[in-house]
Amino acid sequence: MSRSATTSASLAELAQVARAELRGDGHFQILGVAPLEAAGPHDLSFFQPPRSPQILAETRAGALILREQELSLYEGNALVSRNPYASFARVLQHLYPAPRPAPGVDEGAWIAVDAHIHPAARIEAGVRVASGAVVEDGCWLETGVVVGAGVRLGAGCHLFPGVKVYAGVQIGPNCSIHANAVIGADGFGFAPDGDAYLKIPHIGGVRIGRDVEIGANSCIDRGVMADTVIGDGVKIDNLVQIGHNVRIGEHTVIAGQTGVSGSTTIGAHCRIGGQVGFAGHIRIADGCIIAGQSAITHDLRTPGVYSGVLPARPARRWRRLAARFDTLEEFVQRFKQWEKTAAARASAHREESDD
Amino acid sequence: MSRSATTSASLAELAQVARAELRGDGHFQILGVAPLEAAGPHDLSFFQPPRSPQILAETRAGALILREQELSLYEGNALVSRNPYASFARVLQHLYPAPRPAPGVDEGAWIAVDAHIHPAARIEAGVRVASGAVVEDGCWLETGVVVGAGVRLGAGCHLFPGVKVYAGVQIGPNCSIHANAVIGADGFGFAPDGDAYLKIPHIGGVRIGRDVEIGANSCIDRGVMADTVIGDGVKIDNLVQIGHNVRIGEHTVIAGQTGVSGSTTIGAHCRIGGQVGFAGHIRIADGCIIAGQSAITHDLRTPGVYSGVLPARPARRWRRLAARFDTLEEFVQRFKQWEKTAAARASAHREESDD
Amino acid sequence: MSRSATTSASLAELAQVARAELRGDGHFQILGVAPLEAAGPHDLSFFQPPRSPQILAETRAGALILREQELSLYEGNALVSRNPYASFARVLQHLYPAPRPAPGVDEGAWIAVDAHIHPAARIEAGVRVASGAVVEDGCWLETGVVVGAGVRLGAGCHLFPGVKVYAGVQIGPNCSIHANAVIGADGFGFAPDGDAYLKIPHIGGVRIGRDVEIGANSCIDRGVMADTVIGDGVKIDNLVQIGHNVRIGEHTVIAGQTGVSGSTTIGAHCRIGGQVGFAGHIRIADGCIIAGQSAITHDLRTPGVYSGVLPARPARRWRRLAARFDTLEEFVQRFKQWEKTAAARASAHREESDD
Repeated sequence: MSRSATTSASLAELAQVARAELRGDGHFQILGVAPLEAAGPHDLSFFQPPRSPQILAETRAGALILREQELSLYEGNALVSRNPYASFARVLQHLYPAPRPAPGVDEGAWIAVDAHIHPAARIEAGVRVASGAVVEDGCWLETGVVVGAGVRLGAGCHLFPGVKVYAGVQIGPNCSIHANAVIGADGFGFAPDGDAYLKIPHIGGVRIGRDVEIGANSCIDRGVMADTVIGDGVKIDNLVQIGHNVRIGEHTVIAGQTGVSGSTTIGAHCRIGGQVGFAGHIRIADGCIIAGQSAITHDLRTPGVYSGVLPARPARRWRRLAARFDTLEEFVQRFKQWEKTAAARASAHREESDD
Repeated sequence: MSRSATTSASLAELAQVARAELRGDGHFQILGVAPLEAAGPHDLSFFQPPRSPQILAETRAGALILREQELSLYEGNALVSRNPYASFARVLQHLYPAPRPAPGVDEGAWIAVDAHIHPAARIEAGVRVASGAVVEDGCWLETGVVVGAGVRLGAGCHLFPGVKVYAGVQIGPNCSIHANAVIGADGFGFAPDGDAYLKIPHIGGVRIGRDVEIGANSCIDRGVMADTVIGDGVKIDNLVQIGHNVRIGEHTVIAGQTGVSGSTTIGAHCRIGGQVGFAGHIRIADGCIIAGQSAITHDLRTPGVYSGVLPARPARRWRRLAARFDTLEEFVQRFKQWEKTAAARASAHREESDD
Repeated sequence: MSRSATTSASLAELAQVARAELRGDGHFQILGVAPLEAAGPHDLSFFQPPRSPQILAETRAGALILREQELSLYEGNALVSRNPYASFARVLQHLYPAPRPAPGVDEGAWIAVDAHIHPAARIEAGVRVASGAVVEDGCWLETGVVVGAGVRLGAGCHLFPGVKVYAGVQIGPNCSIHANAVIGADGFGFAPDGDAYLKIPHIGGVRIGRDVEIGANSCIDRGVMADTVIGDGVKIDNLVQIGHNVRIGEHTVIAGQTGVSGSTTIGAHCRIGGQVGFAGHIRIADGCIIAGQSAITHDLRTPGVYSGVLPARPARRWRRLAARFDTLEEFVQRFKQWEKTAAARASAHREESDD
């Protein structure tokens, strides 16, 4: 049960694509890919720990990508790679290439007369590109995309349907932005003024590097005076909130529903779980790995793994734990008091014994 | 203070609609519905525990839906039902039927020549339907909806404005998808490759059953190789994130801002609160009830109620509790040490006494 | 490094704008604004605690807005204000006025024949305004906005691209609603009916006051029978969920990704952090300040600061703390048992000594 590949390929060809070494029949034809359990006799699959190698004896896959260490456990055709998952990604990209639409501006797109659309870009119906915007070679803007005044989209950017890019945002080449994401909306800044609030105009922008992917319905706010900055190769999942003046270092990945408050700086090569909340105005070192749902309230100055979640339990048990937590202060006081009394009593007893 | 119903109805007629037994005047005309406190002399309302029955003596409603148990506490016209809330839902659906637009494709819609639009479907201006998509009988696609290539929408689906459905997604009959929801975007999958990441193409799809409701701005990602699957009758609130290859069993309800990480399976008939986070690759049994904001990090193998939240408290008190929590490890060590010393002391004292 | 202002201004003019007192050269020309570190010789900046006043000796800004208290620490041109941040907001609004588009309905907008569009409103291409809707003076509806039947938009509202407003919603004057926000979708209400659920039609609406700002991709659901109500001057950040029948008092601010469950009432002048979760059917007093990520499960009856988050820690340490938390109940029982035994022992010892 696999999806047929757009094109078939020989195992020898895929060895080159995968940057892997061929073992077995180089002429063997691969027609698709599938997970180990579901793969059929002309599917390619891949194996990598922490999966148990037991599956290697059971899979019906036509060929596997695996590490040299596992080679002795598997008798079929194989591509041997130090990084089977990356090799598999390359094979997927080869067998199922992302569709590239024919270039041109469809009827029903609304393009400002002074916008610059590269002739090899594709603009679908229902897209609006405002004054002074630049859309470079190979960009693909799907229906419902709005590109504000003065925006620059680097070559090869794919904006899925409904993406909104506010005025002045700069996006590097080869970025993918998924449906209904919003880039460059005003940050959340208001000055208290008596009983009410005054709007802080956001005259900063957003700068996004190259090879960035941004998930559906995510938001990246513009800066107040300086720019919000997303580094090269950053991957952001769905429904993520990036506040004004945040800076995210290159090749950091951020899972769904995480929120980063204003003016926080996250280093490069971090891996951040889903539903994490970052306070504002803090700094996260390069190379931090943060478990999902954690609250990050202070600087993290050293790379490492961070966590902050109490897993749910059956409600009756949780209620008792929560009640205990609630009396922790009183309990510790009582223990300390008791410790003191008992120590005094022990000391009195010692003196008594000494008599 | 009630909204006038689209049509008025006699109490006898509504008894049938509500699948309830009439007590009182079947000719009594109901002109609208309202909450118990706000209902006027021609409004219908409903009563159900855990509300206090005191309100039954006070309400000015023209008629009530209630259970037989409460009938003695109320003297007015009544519809007697085992499930007053469900009966009330049926009455609301009857008095305020969802608008059904005239069929047809509006000027300003962009429909691929090889898309199949049923003549009784309604496609508004500003909708795009791509190649090979099938839109069945009675579907309603509002402005800004984008339906990708090869998508199938079952009969009677209502896609509110701005919903984006990526290529290949399959949606069963009678689904409602609220504004700006995104179905079928790529999941969050990248293979580490040296310092950077390689995109994992997502060749799987999304399959959604019948009678599913999906909230505004929610996201359901497509699978990597297999499909993401949403069962019949599932109800998903706003701003919910469903990761790639997730499977959700039938008639499960998920409240707002909850996130389900990739490859997790949630059983049927679960009730899941808001802002819950599910780790990836776990299994939740049928019939689990999970309190809002809980972290679900492991399998839940038995039905039941689960919880995992510490409620907020005044900040000064919270700071002490958080500080105590932070020293819990040291405190327990100290207690154990003290327990040991005291036991030794007691034992010494016993020996001493034995002398 | 500052963005040039749309217009330059003299310091004397800006003193009036800022409602501040001028000290120094009233003819001095301000060309832009910038943060203290980045400001150049013709930029205006502002200073306010909790920043350290050390920066006052170092900044190269052409002029500063500051408080009288700090005046002695700074020798340059200054605008003296009791509320420098508010004064700065006024200056920003003056130097960088929000763009106001030329009025008129663009070709490519779809306007119902019986919608009422004020001649001074601007409707861009790709906007749909349904039957009976009223769009007042100075409103600006950007591409992809959908305004449902019977909606009323007060004067001067700005709906950024892709905002969806469902039928019947009422919005007061001078509101800003950011891209892809959804106002008036059905709330999450279903009546259990055997194994499945019945949809509760939502015949209530949404009423939004004046001067409200709503962030990108946020959702405000309509009420079941009564309205969901957002008070004057409320500011709501991105990706916020407001459930059905919620009421939010005037000038309350709510940061990103917070969720408010149905029928909860939040008072006026509250300040609510990001990712906070409110249970349903609770009441929050006026003037509550709630830290980010807190769980609000019960009424907050008195104004004050509330908090409820355990900050993340290095994962090894966190695992030990979580394990201790998990055994808290057993530990407390053990302590109590031990306390009892020891008290008995002490009492026995006392009696022994008394012998």
